[in-house]
Order: sequence, then structure tokens, then C-alpha cells
Amino acid sequence: MTAKSEPVREDLVLALPKGRILDEVRPLLDRVGIIPEPEFDNDNSRHLRFRTNLPHLSLIRVRSFDVATFVAFGAAHLGVAGNDVIMEFDYSELYAPLDLGIGRCRLSVAEPVALSETDDPARWSHVRVATKYPEITRRHFAARGVQAECIKLNGAMELAPALGLSRRIVDLVSSGATLRANGLAEVETIADITSRLIVNRAALKTRPEEMHGWIERFREATHAP
Amino acid sequence: MTAKSEPVREDLVLALPKGRILDEVRPLLDRVGIIPEPEFDNDNSRHLRFRTNLPHLSLIRVRSFDVATFVAFGAAHLGVAGNDVIMEFDYSELYAPLDLGIGRCRLSVAEPVALSETDDPARWSHVRVATKYPEITRRHFAARGVQAECIKLNGAMELAPALGLSRRIVDLVSSGATLRANGLAEVETIADITSRLIVNRAALKTRPEEMHGWIERFREATHAP
Repeated sequence: MTAKSEPVREDLVLALPKGRILDEVRPLLDRVGIIPEPEFDNDNSRHLRFRTNLPHLSLIRVRSFDVATFVAFGAAHLGVAGNDVIMEFDYSELYAPLDLGIGRCRLSVAEPVALSETDDPARWSHVRVATKYPEITRRHFAARGVQAECIKLNGAMELAPALGLSRRIVDLVSSGATLRANGLAEVETIADITSRLIVNRAALKTRPEEMHGWIERFREATHAP
Repeated sequence: MTAKSEPVREDLVLALPKGRILDEVRPLLDRVGIIPEPEFDNDNSRHLRFRTNLPHLSLIRVRSFDVATFVAFGAAHLGVAGNDVIMEFDYSELYAPLDLGIGRCRLSVAEPVALSETDDPARWSHVRVATKYPEITRRHFAARGVQAECIKLNGAMELAPALGLSRRIVDLVSSGATLRANGLAEVETIADITSRLIVNRAALKTRPEEMHGWIERFREATHAP
């Protein structure tokens, strides 16, 4: 016999990005009171979804671009994503109410050092670029009348100039060490990047108390000393 | 004083995919006589390009989708890529002369087990699918008049049905263990997948002896007992 009860609310799902940002997200989870099940800290785990200490909140750990997709389609209610990812997709269903102040880097145009010494991006009329961010790149250059031909790569952008794929790349730059190791120099910054808390707009309307509660908790955790 | 000499031919570049296929590629490299520098076997290496025992051949190690892009644009001359990647891009500049017989799996449509028991893909008129392969998926379904709405994910497709992103996914399936662990069952195979030797068509015309030499060496190594 099954007991009749109130309609069961589905768990809230928080989508987190795999990789280096996750190390910066963990202290935030601690501060908002989310303790993931132990398997979450096993980097080699094949699990994709994890329980937490909170009965109605679960976590998924997916690639950074997929965080935005899961949240935009309402398959996750909340997520952590860099504004690089948010800008690239430009999903109308995503709302990014809070800068978490982690994952700081910049999205930049880079080219071989020798070329950069005399090159002036302000004088380009056409540019060929290897990048993981074709939409941002096209919009950025189109805004000043430059046509950008983008070759989409999923990684290893810094190989492109040496192999003749494109002289320029648009990539995330943190310390600049990877660029220098590949003989490249930044010539222009497109955007400063940090990770944001993102939420699904429909969930914000249908479950306003829970959703605003989480936004407030993350806001306090972000501004904690 | 610099010596004048014949124009220097650029190295041939062989692009190999990161990840699990690389373990199956290594014995083939041995058999064709390519010995990578020791750093190549350091999985945590930040290097992207590697020397070999052969003075005019270097290797790059990139994501599987990027192998096809580097070869199609002539930034690498040869590469190893699954026909999933080749079909997804459909680059006219790629020629895939040789099935290497490694990386065997299939590209399949899967859905929750309970749904699969009564569902018949032949009766679909519209389908929503989460996949890394939107182009293949659209073409596959369009060929029989089914409209496929594809949500592109870069990984973790098997999360999509449980989270309500899409009931169906199109994904690579090897043993099927990942599907089963997520309560999913295959309902249709789109293509059998193996890795192929791919070459840049322009390089085949401009450097025919070297290129055909490598195709022959890989052919012999593939058919070796």
C-alpha cells in the first residue's frame, strides 16, 4: 500500500563545472552549508549526480559549457558558470544574479610575440581566429566592423599559430604562462571573466522562495570575510 | 652567416586523440616505427606537440573533435579519428583511406528502460535528443522524415533523461555498462564506429610520396597478424 501525499517536489539540482574551477567552488559550498556525499571528491568517479546533506538538493558535475545548457533548459535549477560560457551561449532562460568572485581570468586575443610587436588590432579589417568561443569572438569584432573567421577548437588553441591554422587565437588567459610557453602574447582583452551563480528563470518564478533563498545564501557566502 | 639551402620542408604532423583511444593507437605507432619522445607518455604533461625518433615527423595530442579540424585545415597532415567525428563534421578536405580497426563502439539512440519496452522508433515523427553529435543525429532522423530537436552536450549525455532535459540521447556505446548504470537502454544503432587514418587532401597532392608512404605503413601495421 502506498501512502497518498502532497505531490512530490523534484529535488533542486545545482550544476557545477568539472576541472580547476571546482577547487574554488568547494569552499563556497562549505559556507552555504552544502556537504556533498564523499564520492563527489573522487576525481575518477564515474558518477555524474551526487547527493548532499540536504534532502532536496543534489549536485551534478559536468563540463563548464554543459552547466549553462542544463540550467538554461531547466534540467538543473542553479549552476556555477563563467561569464565566458554565459556570453558564448547568450541563453534567454539564464539569469546570472551573482558574481561569485572566483575563477578570475580574462578572455583575450593573442598572437605570436614577433607579430605582436608591430601589430595593431585597431587596424584589422579581417581576422582569422582559432577559439572555443566563436560567438563571442564574432560579436566582439563585428562591433567595430571587423569580420572574424572563426575556427572552433575545443582545446589546444595555443597550437594553432605554430601549425599555421590561424595566426591569432581567442582564449582564456590566467597567468599568461601557457601563452609565453608557446611564444604568444596578448594583444587585446575581450572580457574579464569570473564565475557567476546562474539560475533558470522559470524555476525562479515557480519556486521563488527556495531559489531566492539560495541566491541569498550564496551572496552572503561570497561577501563573507 | 647563414647557409643558403633548399627550402625547408615543414615537418609532417600526425594528430592523435587524447583519452582512451590513445592506448589503442600506441601499438600501431610501434608497428609503423614511430617512437614518441618520453614526455608523450606523461598523461599530465602540458605539452601539446611532441618530437619523435623521425626527424621530419611530429605528433600533436588534442581532443578527438579537434583532430579532424587540425587535419581538415592542413595544420596537421595526418590524424586518427573515429568515423563519429568524421561524420559529424563532414569536412570536404578530409580523406579517410584506412580503417584502423581500433576504438570499436557504436553510435546509438538510447532512452529509459521502462520507455524502451513499448517504444518503437519507427513510429516517431519528432524526437528531442541530447547529444554530442547534432549533425549526425539530424541527418539520421531526417532521412526517414523524423524531425530531431538536438540539445548539444559535450559530455554526461546519460544525465539528460533523469533530469528531464530529453527522454532520448544519442551517444557512443561500447559495453553498454554506462547506459545500464543510468537505467537506459539502446533502441536503435545509428552507426558502427572505428577509428580511421585521416589525411588532408591538399597534402596528399603536394606531398604524395610521403603521404602515400604513411598510408601504406599504417595499412601494413593494421593488417599485421
